[in-house]
Amino acid sequence: MPEQPELTIQGWGPGSSRVATVRADGDSGDGGLELAPDPDLGTALPKAARRHLVRELGWTPRPTPPIAVPEIRLAPSRLPGDVRAALAGLLGEEHVHTDRETRLRRTGGKSYLDLLRRRAGDASDAPDAVVLPGTTEETAALLRLCSEHDVVVVPFGGGTSVVGGLSGTDPDDRPSVSVDLGRMASVVDVDIASSLVTVGPGLRGPALEETLGRQGLTLGHLPQSWEFATLGGYAATRSAGQASTGVGRFDDLVAGLTLATPSGVLELGSPPASAAGPDLLGLALGSEGALGVVTELRLRVRPQPQVTRYEGWSFRTWADGLAGLQRLARHDLLPDVVRLSDPDETRANLLNAGGTGARLLRGSLRARRRAEGCLLVVGWEGLPPLVRARRRAAVPVLGEHGAVPVGRRVGESWRAHRYAAPYLRDRLLDAGLLVETLETAATWTALPTVYDAVRAALRRSLGRPGREPLVMSHVSHGYATGASLYVTVLADRDDDLPLQQWLTAKRAATDALLAAGGTLTHHHAVGADHRPWLEREVGPLGVEVLRAVKQRLDPRGICNPGVLLPD
Amino acid sequence: MPEQPELTIQGWGPGSSRVATVRADGDSGDGGLELAPDPDLGTALPKAARRHLVRELGWTPRPTPPIAVPEIRLAPSRLPGDVRAALAGLLGEEHVHTDRETRLRRTGGKSYLDLLRRRAGDASDAPDAVVLPGTTEETAALLRLCSEHDVVVVPFGGGTSVVGGLSGTDPDDRPSVSVDLGRMASVVDVDIASSLVTVGPGLRGPALEETLGRQGLTLGHLPQSWEFATLGGYAATRSAGQASTGVGRFDDLVAGLTLATPSGVLELGSPPASAAGPDLLGLALGSEGALGVVTELRLRVRPQPQVTRYEGWSFRTWADGLAGLQRLARHDLLPDVVRLSDPDETRANLLNAGGTGARLLRGSLRARRRAEGCLLVVGWEGLPPLVRARRRAAVPVLGEHGAVPVGRRVGESWRAHRYAAPYLRDRLLDAGLLVETLETAATWTALPTVYDAVRAALRRSLGRPGREPLVMSHVSHGYATGASLYVTVLADRDDDLPLQQWLTAKRAATDALLAAGGTLTHHHAVGADHRPWLEREVGPLGVEVLRAVKQRLDPRGICNPGVLLPD
Repeated sequence: MPEQPELTIQGWGPGSSRVATVRADGDSGDGGLELAPDPDLGTALPKAARRHLVRELGWTPRPTPPIAVPEIRLAPSRLPGDVRAALAGLLGEEHVHTDRETRLRRTGGKSYLDLLRRRAGDASDAPDAVVLPGTTEETAALLRLCSEHDVVVVPFGGGTSVVGGLSGTDPDDRPSVSVDLGRMASVVDVDIASSLVTVGPGLRGPALEETLGRQGLTLGHLPQSWEFATLGGYAATRSAGQASTGVGRFDDLVAGLTLATPSGVLELGSPPASAAGPDLLGLALGSEGALGVVTELRLRVRPQPQVTRYEGWSFRTWADGLAGLQRLARHDLLPDVVRLSDPDETRANLLNAGGTGARLLRGSLRARRRAEGCLLVVGWEGLPPLVRARRRAAVPVLGEHGAVPVGRRVGESWRAHRYAAPYLRDRLLDAGLLVETLETAATWTALPTVYDAVRAALRRSLGRPGREPLVMSHVSHGYATGASLYVTVLADRDDDLPLQQWLTAKRAATDALLAAGGTLTHHHAVGADHRPWLEREVGPLGVEVLRAVKQRLDPRGICNPGVLLPD
Repeated sequence: MPEQPELTIQGWGPGSSRVATVRADGDSGDGGLELAPDPDLGTALPKAARRHLVRELGWTPRPTPPIAVPEIRLAPSRLPGDVRAALAGLLGEEHVHTDRETRLRRTGGKSYLDLLRRRAGDASDAPDAVVLPGTTEETAALLRLCSEHDVVVVPFGGGTSVVGGLSGTDPDDRPSVSVDLGRMASVVDVDIASSLVTVGPGLRGPALEETLGRQGLTLGHLPQSWEFATLGGYAATRSAGQASTGVGRFDDLVAGLTLATPSGVLELGSPPASAAGPDLLGLALGSEGALGVVTELRLRVRPQPQVTRYEGWSFRTWADGLAGLQRLARHDLLPDVVRLSDPDETRANLLNAGGTGARLLRGSLRARRRAEGCLLVVGWEGLPPLVRARRRAAVPVLGEHGAVPVGRRVGESWRAHRYAAPYLRDRLLDAGLLVETLETAATWTALPTVYDAVRAALRRSLGRPGREPLVMSHVSHGYATGASLYVTVLADRDDDLPLQQWLTAKRAATDALLAAGGTLTHHHAVGADHRPWLEREVGPLGVEVLRAVKQRLDPRGICNPGVLLPD
């Protein structure tokens, strides 16, 4: 098939969102409160895609703009004056903020529920103050101080949690401070021989990659939230990036970290590896602020790839696609980036694809009777002879499972637009849609069952006569033992009870995926949203072990009490 | 260089030992108590090697045989009658043993200290009884029972600990039972599509590989103790195998496990991966029996390699060798097996090499002025085109660092004799030598300093006028961020105070390697021997976190109290 002209492939899901929500500006941009909805959905969505959604969902596009920023309801700060004074004494007056704008900017994350609340003008989960420590020692001291005064502490990195990681809910309704890590955002050390870099937790991916790039290095961790999320946040949530099949999950990239807790400071990790007892570093990873605050990280970096090759393939069916990936995985032949879309996502992505090449691709697929197929985007990166050898070994396996190549343009287009989906999402929210994602992972054996179960649960919960949800799925992370499953849901929003509409659907989907053998979350973390199911994941005794650790490190329970551990 | 005729390369270190010690027979063989020393050291050691040792160490070969089995001192069992009866009621009378032979067979491990004690007839660390549960439920019930009756529980797998993992020391001197996992040694399930196998903890590597081999699969975990050690033991100690550079540490191969504790049963791990909170599976790995007993494991397996290629290379210097490996590691080009010997180990191994080819190899190296060089054994395994591509990319890097190939025979010989060293060790112990190993790991940046520091400390501690220890080192596990360092020490034994001689040297070496930036242990675990240094590895608060977990799972402190946590 000939090279295609311009083509734009992008997903639909969130991960982060920057329009129609109040966000912290950090070091990333203009810092404006971008709240104006785009009344002209047409500029965001091709006509065919819009028609497709109207038809599939029974959706009537309608303006449902967020409330204007000045009308967002924010209660006065409840931080006691003596605590405020003590914090100012510790950190400097200029690093303690209780003004409306600073508090709004650190309110909530980017889940659909967060966005709904914010769009409705509800900022009841806002912190009472925002503080910015500059060092590990200051962070440890502020945790001690807050512990003594019973003030809740919620760490703030990029504000991109999609599971309510910043909810700040406290059973005792104590005042809370947001600990913004923006001042601890430098590259502290680069040890090239050991492929290690030491960084502050508030550093963002783009800034790190820029520094590393000057020395020919890369971290390679590229989740959809990459533009905004911080390295400390990745560690606290056990993130996985779009190239995690190749470079590994963020867990795999952390060689060590410093965790400040109300009971003191933990220095964890002994690179390259250790057998000195249980893995305490693994306890800090995924602790989501509930055990303390990550104040420094040592990360494994690697040389920038000398060659990258992205391309598209089309499988006849989802089962064929899964079987093909499983075969590759088993022989350690998976590409560095793997993204297999199911028929619903493939169809929607093709409709949503722009550029002059999109029509050609659609026509080509139809001609091969692949209109109903499954698109696979793969990317190989590394040294040229190895990329070549790996690809040569993988291609026949894809062929044996009925895949046909659909060109490098498809792969490159996906790569070029990999961070775009969240922006589109905001446009859809403005027009009366429910848009949310969830994700899991399962063994190759359980994955088809998990897929069926989640889809059925979401359709049952969100479907009403004449209005069916669109449930689109893809595999985005492959392992020898299984793969992740990422699900994007679009539905006509229930304008009267939008929160309940999603909470009900989410509950049904989560129950279904756990019953089918999926994990509670593959890379979004537990947050507030998944707390009720943690016990099903690790058992009652597993929860008790976590409680014992928390009790030791955070006896007053001030560290992000609204996440991770069930009530 | 031409292919060599027969050549025998083997190391000197332990890892396990089966001669001159009492071992559990399990399912592996004759079950005899092999205690007769070989009076003819000549059959175990070539003359040149023997001369080398006499010259280097100032050693006088002399018969120092172990005491005969009937003379080993064993106190009567202290297990209270009511507890014995309750255990028999739970497990069946036939699975509760208090006889002399069964107790002796589960006494101690294979450290030099263990061997010295046993050879001297000291079995004061013997368990008061040996019990064999058949299921997770029985194990959990026996832990509850022992907790209620204040009876210490020490899990027993292969008995190959080299760090005092079976010491059974209890500060309160309570009676103890050895929980032999030999009845839980089956392959429970093989999920080929998901590359997962479920096994009992008492299963040994050879039996697992035989079962897997019938389906074209392998686990690939091959530590030197492979013939005897159990899969549960690997998990409890965070083992690493000789091919761990390629297949990963045992940690990486565990997808899930069941841990029975006095407080209940934990089912941990969600393959392929999860972000549902901190990694509790990582807490069970490396828990060394101090949190409970591993009763089932899910392991990641892979297809048997279609091709294997082992070969030898010679570097001019240790620094060249480290630099070459570091370059390979940085570009993800390390072979699956990597073993770089320092000049002392290279010289000793060449002297110890048997077969008609050994002379040729030695001559060839001398001709190239490499007699003082460093031998590198590497092994590539996998699919032919990938092995070819990886090797082709790696070879020029080796060349750039001055390495020259010394043939496949060297690599194949090492591979053929990879489990032989412990047998040789027993012969050396019989002849008046101190033979012990220790190991660590450090970043590539810190590794040369760690190497120098350990060697200096051992030489200082063990050297006396006219008697110098032989300190031989190799790197056996490479990572992008650093490598392991394995050190074998030979010295003339202090016949009056042999335990103190080694304890003093070990303390000096451990202090030195920690100060230089090494980890306390890369794959031998903490056991009893490393306990005093755990706080230096994870900090006082890290120890407190482990204590909090232990307190929750094992409130009476009956689970292997002599290991892991400092007093």
